[in-house]
Amino acid sequence: MPGPVLEFWYDFASTYSYLAAMRIEAAAEEAGVKVHWRPFLLGPIFAAQGWTTSPFNLFPDKGRYMWRDMEREAARLGVPFCRPDPFPQNSLLAARVALVGLDQGWTPAFTKAVFAAEFGKSRNISDPAALSIVLTDLGLDAGAVMEQAQAEANKARLRRIGEEAQLRGIFGAPCFVAEDRELFWGNDRLERALDWATARARHSDVPV
Amino acid sequence: MPGPVLEFWYDFASTYSYLAAMRIEAAAEEAGVKVHWRPFLLGPIFAAQGWTTSPFNLFPDKGRYMWRDMEREAARLGVPFCRPDPFPQNSLLAARVALVGLDQGWTPAFTKAVFAAEFGKSRNISDPAALSIVLTDLGLDAGAVMEQAQAEANKARLRRIGEEAQLRGIFGAPCFVAEDRELFWGNDRLERALDWATARARHSDVPV
Repeated sequence: MPGPVLEFWYDFASTYSYLAAMRIEAAAEEAGVKVHWRPFLLGPIFAAQGWTTSPFNLFPDKGRYMWRDMEREAARLGVPFCRPDPFPQNSLLAARVALVGLDQGWTPAFTKAVFAAEFGKSRNISDPAALSIVLTDLGLDAGAVMEQAQAEANKARLRRIGEEAQLRGIFGAPCFVAEDRELFWGNDRLERALDWATARARHSDVPV
Repeated sequence: MPGPVLEFWYDFASTYSYLAAMRIEAAAEEAGVKVHWRPFLLGPIFAAQGWTTSPFNLFPDKGRYMWRDMEREAARLGVPFCRPDPFPQNSLLAARVALVGLDQGWTPAFTKAVFAAEFGKSRNISDPAALSIVLTDLGLDAGAVMEQAQAEANKARLRRIGEEAQLRGIFGAPCFVAEDRELFWGNDRLERALDWATARARHSDVPV
């Protein structure tokens, strides 16, 4: 019988997606939930709302608060944190590369390494060289992966995932989506999403 | 020696302020923190960002999510929840009345009763009659309180509090502000804010 599953929707430019990525595996394992990693781009979703950049840039008080809150939350979780420059980073290439890993199983490791480079070491993740270093460190053939990432079929796949995000009502990141499409937004909602996924799996065990 | 203090900034129209108001007293008592209630108006702060209504109305996906999240969170906290019509409610009069109670000590009870009427019984809180019922139920002279609420000095006091909110970088509600001006935004951050307030009070016990 299949166990509970939760989709983890994240954008590599998103600060709170970083926090969620660093802790979701341990939390999901403890809850007995399988995680499906869903890298996507927030840019088109923001653009559809008339935003040309991150709301944290558009609304300065909200932005100032977020940077301070991230400092506190990163310290609480015991992960490093520095402010990327520029913010937001262009996450297109990283998202394309992460998609390639979905079929090969290395997307979680790649995602955590990219987030750690971006928010822990101030690396610019739009730089193909920075991503190649991450891939090589994971024992992968960076050149081959980059080629697959930039193939037309993979670009189209990322666009389809973006359309799926909009259909599901995703408006920010991170989001967690249960099998019944129940949506949870924000790193703060991870535990509630895991609870939902496990409760739903229990109920679906009951013959109708 | 004075114990830890936390300011609770809330707008009567704000959904998550309702949740925070219903639980802050018990949580603060357990943490040994004194709460200063700070009713204020988000409207001028939103207007300064170019918003003419709640962001939950301006951004439909965000709004749809909030209503669903409020349903879940209210159920979790065991408080009733219905969607006010119109949303947001005009919270000007309720905020003015709540200010009157600050000097007389009934602001917490009034605030909880107004939120319960608004989000539990679909009462329109811009209606003076609805607020008078709340005041009368609290054993107060509703007519006298209403007169004080609408006095010029009290109106000016609410405007000053609004200016103070902007100076403190408050951009949404609820917010919690510690004595050192550390800001926490959202019902989800209440526990962190209480932790901060108690830790700070411990440190200030140490002679410098």
